[in-house]
Amino acid sequence: MAKENQFVEQIADINADFPQWYTDVVLKTKLVDYGPVKGTMVIRPYGYAIWENIQKELNARFAKQGVQNAYFPLLIPMSYFTKEAEHVEGFAPEVAVVTHAGGEELAEPLAIRPTSETIIGTMMSKWVQSYRDLPLKVNQWCNVMRWEKTTRPFLRTSEFLWHEGHTAHVTAEEAEEFTLAMLNLYKEFMETCLAIPVITGRKTEKERFAGAVATYTMEAMMRDGKSLQSGTSHYLGQNFAKAFNIEFQGAEGGLQTAYTTSFGVSTRLIGAIIMTHGDERGLVFPPVIAPTQCVIVPIASRKPGVVEACEALKTKLEENGIRVVLDNTDNSPGWKFNEWEMKGVPVRIELGPRDIEAGKMICARRDTCEKAEYSLENAVESVKELLASVQKDMLESARARRDSKIVYADDMKGILDGVDAGNFVKAGWCGCRACEDKIKEETGATARVFAEGETAETCAVCGKKAEHVIIYARAY
Amino acid sequence: MAKENQFVEQIADINADFPQWYTDVVLKTKLVDYGPVKGTMVIRPYGYAIWENIQKELNARFAKQGVQNAYFPLLIPMSYFTKEAEHVEGFAPEVAVVTHAGGEELAEPLAIRPTSETIIGTMMSKWVQSYRDLPLKVNQWCNVMRWEKTTRPFLRTSEFLWHEGHTAHVTAEEAEEFTLAMLNLYKEFMETCLAIPVITGRKTEKERFAGAVATYTMEAMMRDGKSLQSGTSHYLGQNFAKAFNIEFQGAEGGLQTAYTTSFGVSTRLIGAIIMTHGDERGLVFPPVIAPTQCVIVPIASRKPGVVEACEALKTKLEENGIRVVLDNTDNSPGWKFNEWEMKGVPVRIELGPRDIEAGKMICARRDTCEKAEYSLENAVESVKELLASVQKDMLESARARRDSKIVYADDMKGILDGVDAGNFVKAGWCGCRACEDKIKEETGATARVFAEGETAETCAVCGKKAEHVIIYARAY
Repeated sequence: MAKENQFVEQIADINADFPQWYTDVVLKTKLVDYGPVKGTMVIRPYGYAIWENIQKELNARFAKQGVQNAYFPLLIPMSYFTKEAEHVEGFAPEVAVVTHAGGEELAEPLAIRPTSETIIGTMMSKWVQSYRDLPLKVNQWCNVMRWEKTTRPFLRTSEFLWHEGHTAHVTAEEAEEFTLAMLNLYKEFMETCLAIPVITGRKTEKERFAGAVATYTMEAMMRDGKSLQSGTSHYLGQNFAKAFNIEFQGAEGGLQTAYTTSFGVSTRLIGAIIMTHGDERGLVFPPVIAPTQCVIVPIASRKPGVVEACEALKTKLEENGIRVVLDNTDNSPGWKFNEWEMKGVPVRIELGPRDIEAGKMICARRDTCEKAEYSLENAVESVKELLASVQKDMLESARARRDSKIVYADDMKGILDGVDAGNFVKAGWCGCRACEDKIKEETGATARVFAEGETAETCAVCGKKAEHVIIYARAY
Repeated sequence: MAKENQFVEQIADINADFPQWYTDVVLKTKLVDYGPVKGTMVIRPYGYAIWENIQKELNARFAKQGVQNAYFPLLIPMSYFTKEAEHVEGFAPEVAVVTHAGGEELAEPLAIRPTSETIIGTMMSKWVQSYRDLPLKVNQWCNVMRWEKTTRPFLRTSEFLWHEGHTAHVTAEEAEEFTLAMLNLYKEFMETCLAIPVITGRKTEKERFAGAVATYTMEAMMRDGKSLQSGTSHYLGQNFAKAFNIEFQGAEGGLQTAYTTSFGVSTRLIGAIIMTHGDERGLVFPPVIAPTQCVIVPIASRKPGVVEACEALKTKLEENGIRVVLDNTDNSPGWKFNEWEMKGVPVRIELGPRDIEAGKMICARRDTCEKAEYSLENAVESVKELLASVQKDMLESARARRDSKIVYADDMKGILDGVDAGNFVKAGWCGCRACEDKIKEETGATARVFAEGETAETCAVCGKKAEHVIIYARAY
């Protein structure tokens, strides 16, 4: 057993040192590596496959909403940022700047996009002439750059990959409705594909996107009780449309200004998956986005017929759209079990001479570690059902864990105790910035999201009448 | 008919002014737009859909070769470029440089990748420890930047999208074999998917990639007889492996240095498709990568049942994997015919009350403009067969046109006359750089590729014994 334990020994104890566990697991499973420039990451094939699965799922959903993919330039003239006052204030400190190109100093420095509202707004103003050109819905999958001081693979890196959707509409109502439709699309995607339950709602003014009228967020609880902002959908009102002249002839004549939105999720989501589902043995991937859904481990593989049976099974599963790997290496079955557990593969099939003779296979689920026998004949149906169960149960289990860690507090001490114990804390808020700032100072927690539809008597900070209920948490 | 002709009037005469025709057609069909920074482009949804189809086709082929997608950082320390002498010489003049980030001047300036051999070499040296780690085959789809003086959408822009594959191998033989396997993969892809015949082979030393031992190219002939380098596969020998220490323990012990390759195609390919197949009416897309494969135009759409029949047909085609659009706008059928012809949709279906009554539909092919009647009942099979015919015939037609424009020359005048008449010209070459330079100076043509397996008596420039036959052409 010594050999087998090597895998668990390679990664820190998830309960004792969660940050170290995270670093160990992302590096050891070859999801990611550090790039040579500080704060950058290399997304290795095992990590990138997750991103490709996320892209596929989101692209299908965007297409149904009439959002079309496009590509806009990486470099944005610095002057564009100054056109929207809040926007430049929010992003200027994080921007990486190109000053030289082609062996010469540039007349105007160019920013590497931290986000593309300004350049897409510029193009929209050219493309939108009449109300008939609206709504205009575009999206791009691209790299963006925000120069961050403290970085961690997937969670916060100076360069990351994301998608950013941008739309323009005739009316405020339509734009606001679309902002919420994207938030709901995200929520459904998070739960269906990543098995991550999220709390959705509006951000406070302090926490909203620089230049937005309203920012809606989805917040997910990680294993340690901290929150991870997993995606945002912004209603931009006419802020960018006015700054970039997105104007059109209305249906009744007369020049009108459009209303715009933007929305995005990033490679952070890979971090969210790891930190929501991982356990002491390593990664646990939800089947829908797992790079490998099923691994076949031959038992007594030198016995005649074993490898052939494994290969036949692999082909059958593959032909039915299951992402399957046959581990035919020289390592012992125990070693393989532990390696593929660390790599988070949802279902493991064990197949040996006795199983083959009996027309059976053994399947082990990664999430619950339960093992059971299935008939080889119905392998495809069984594996598909098992994958569906794992997917569903992972969501329910994450939801139950999260729900057990949402508490209420009436005062500052209650908030501090709550977040210290790894909870999301709901508390009343008067609505003033001073109280919001004070909570951050004294507890390290921030206002993650409005708890929509809930009410409280008093503000947990000043004791005055509460106007809202806020979910506070420490956050990544 | 005046209204219908507007479309053709919008674009320059392809025979009279090919460059203007190109610019007109890419802008009018909304494939692309100019970005705000000089030399940049915005790839609009209709253009980006082609790129997505190219990605899908190539990804499927790469996966079969064991090439896995990954993502490497955009920014590369300037010092990395200097590690391979030829490489820095080739790329330094075109590099865009980040000097400031996060509000501070950087200690070392960072290059925006013009290509990623240096950073991928650095990571490979970390990942490759033993011969068991080889071959290592990675690929990334990303943006790159090369500061160009003269730019044209898709063909040459300061930022463009591409894929770049990078592999490391134990032996020179294996690496060289893989270089050629990728060249052949490209050729098959070009012919099968883009319906573009290509001539593949080695580049002269002058034309090869900065840092390569050998560069293999595929050259395609555009409508005007100019050549477009459509993709390259490089055998890098140990040049980069030595510069970046990609070393490993060999099977028999002892430290060895790997052999590497790289290969790439870019959004240039969209330009190649346009300039190979386009005609006086606009774009002509090969079905495999066409954003829309089939458009349904209702005839007398206000007559009862017409729209319903069109919608039913659309659903049926869609369910069978055909990318189909139903044009239900208020424009006249003639207007629609011309608009969708300009947009290059391979098959147009016309469906009116009489057709429906007779259980028929009319299909028009974009490539030959032939029209024929088909039964509505077998619509799916008929459209599929038609798309397959269009795809096949477009390749044959492009091949015949190209083959008729390959000529031989014995001397400089022959080369000049040949390229002036819009041909590829085959001529003998002694092998010396002076003769190669002289041809460029006097004819504007460059050595595109070695004509493998062909022989000639004398060099067309100096009259000495010819060592090779070269295909000369003017090029994009």
